Amino acid sequence: MSRFLSREAARLAPYVPGEQPGGGFIKLNTNENPFPPSPAVLAAVTEKAGGLNLYNDPSCAALRAALAAEYGLAPAQVLPANGSDEALAFALRAFCGAGRPLAFADVTYGFYEVWANFFGFEAQRIPLAADFTLRPKDYFGLGCTIVLANPNAPTGLALPPEEIGRIAAANPDNVVIVDEAYADFAPQSCLGLLGRHPNLLIVRTFSKSRSLAGGRLGFALGSEELIACLARVRDSFHPYNVNTLTQAAGIAALADREYFARCLADVCATRRWAAGALAALGFEGTDSAANFVFVRHPALPGREIAAALRARGILVRRWDAPRIADWLRISVGSRPQMQTLLAALADILHTSPKEA
Amino acid sequence: MSRFLSREAARLAPYVPGEQPGGGFIKLNTNENPFPPSPAVLAAVTEKAGGLNLYNDPSCAALRAALAAEYGLAPAQVLPANGSDEALAFALRAFCGAGRPLAFADVTYGFYEVWANFFGFEAQRIPLAADFTLRPKDYFGLGCTIVLANPNAPTGLALPPEEIGRIAAANPDNVVIVDEAYADFAPQSCLGLLGRHPNLLIVRTFSKSRSLAGGRLGFALGSEELIACLARVRDSFHPYNVNTLTQAAGIAALADREYFARCLADVCATRRWAAGALAALGFEGTDSAANFVFVRHPALPGREIAAALRARGILVRRWDAPRIADWLRISVGSRPQMQTLLAALADILHTSPKEA
Repeated sequence: MSRFLSREAARLAPYVPGEQPGGGFIKLNTNENPFPPSPAVLAAVTEKAGGLNLYNDPSCAALRAALAAEYGLAPAQVLPANGSDEALAFALRAFCGAGRPLAFADVTYGFYEVWANFFGFEAQRIPLAADFTLRPKDYFGLGCTIVLANPNAPTGLALPPEEIGRIAAANPDNVVIVDEAYADFAPQSCLGLLGRHPNLLIVRTFSKSRSLAGGRLGFALGSEELIACLARVRDSFHPYNVNTLTQAAGIAALADREYFARCLADVCATRRWAAGALAALGFEGTDSAANFVFVRHPALPGREIAAALRARGILVRRWDAPRIADWLRISVGSRPQMQTLLAALADILHTSPKEA
Repeated sequence: MSRFLSREAARLAPYVPGEQPGGGFIKLNTNENPFPPSPAVLAAVTEKAGGLNLYNDPSCAALRAALAAEYGLAPAQVLPANGSDEALAFALRAFCGAGRPLAFADVTYGFYEVWANFFGFEAQRIPLAADFTLRPKDYFGLGCTIVLANPNAPTGLALPPEEIGRIAAANPDNVVIVDEAYADFAPQSCLGLLGRHPNLLIVRTFSKSRSLAGGRLGFALGSEELIACLARVRDSFHPYNVNTLTQAAGIAALADREYFARCLADVCATRRWAAGALAALGFEGTDSAANFVFVRHPALPGREIAAALRARGILVRRWDAPRIADWLRISVGSRPQMQTLLAALADILHTSPKEA
């Protein structure tokens, strides 16, 4: 380790993102949308590129207005960021610190723990049940800031909004952050709770459901009080964090409702079909409400399946982590991509898919 | 202040960026380039927009290769970021902390102090001389991480590279960060020092000289050791920080050398001309090597001049800060913008410009 590194930087434990290889792979490892962004995004980006010599609007006024209208909120209840990762990082800096630890599930998005190290506050891991379900009562009266991915990653399991509402009500002096990165693929969201719980913050992303992973756009929704806290953090780190093209892409993606609905319906239908086909191959899986499935096979360790898929040009995600080392998180790609996946799995398992 | 805010977030002192009004102003307040980005940028962005459903390359391999080739370095000596502000923030987290304060000039880029608050390390302000020049000896053997804007902002004054080299040599156990946001407009840069000083880090931006302020692209250059430290910080905060379109825009802007040279020559010629015309109006100014001038007038306080310009639709930058409260930082805009500025100033000063 470099002698120049500060102690604070030396103790960091960087996140390891899913592979982003140059090409030639069927990428089912980072939950990307198989559909390109709306054509309106292309038009918006092309229109704005000539003005890039001027700074982007640091207040993101037009984008905030569009998001506020979409979700029935005031613009001051919205804060866009350079991906939902940045929105989450701002929220954790705003609401966690010495004497204010962060609580989250033992199986969830791995970055929460990385940010705890980054900002130097304590993390409290709360075990999920054996079937990966979350017991709301475990979170009542914790005295911590809480972050819940809902649907959870990598399990895909979603808690009904009323359960999240009970957690928020049982922690009135602490902020409850709901990471809804995958909520557009789920039957319900916590948006309806915002009016009732001033301590509830929802973080969302354009990466998955709106096909803008490479555009980097996330946002937080909450009470004006909480959003002002996030803005305070952003303005102490990088006020110009969302560039001009990304702001324009976000507005255009939001406006094309029909395209959004069509892509969403396709991904959800493919998820149902793929989950059934995987079950037919002997996989067991969670009841995922996200744009991925989370499965394991009784006959082969996850590591072996992932390696065999990789050898066949297909990437899926797995972790060397307690409880989930045998599980695979497989993004819902296009129908042809999933057919290729199923054929490869059938080959690996020396059987044939029931219907592909 | 919100009761939900952590102590760490409560003590932040957010940066106040220059105004970014919707339109109708001649904006000479945030050092934007008056020329649009290269047409190659427009083409690159349009080409890449259709693939935004896929994540950007977190390693920025192609952009790093292009920057490395441009500056005669290895790709592992380059780290792009979401604006040079983010690159600077990563560097300060990497190299500052408890027992490792940050030293910088009392008159310099205001964000250094904001980041000291953000990360919770100490800041040591070192006064410039009365004429705003920096005395290298003040920085010898400090035992601090050092950040020097060169040319400095908002004074525009540049230290010769050999003086920076002496500072780096006199602090072999600490990192010296040179913020070269404006170096393309200056006669010299510290790039040639990189091979000699493993503790030297240079941070640059596409915002000013390459007309990409709204695209958000900055980068750090240094030894592989220092760059690895920055990557460690980035990967603990947001590994996907530079989006696909910005990476493509950067590569295209770098490739169009002729356009770059032409814009640069125009801005520098306009700076010389405007500085002379301002002197003819009675302004005194620094010998700026940046894309702005830094001036004051003996007859009128800076605050009054700025307000009078604003009333005439022209924005310039000033600060309510010790030593510089009477000074104005005026970006070098297009020739017609500067003519409008000079006519307005002549009007404000009840005289007429010698040559406009």
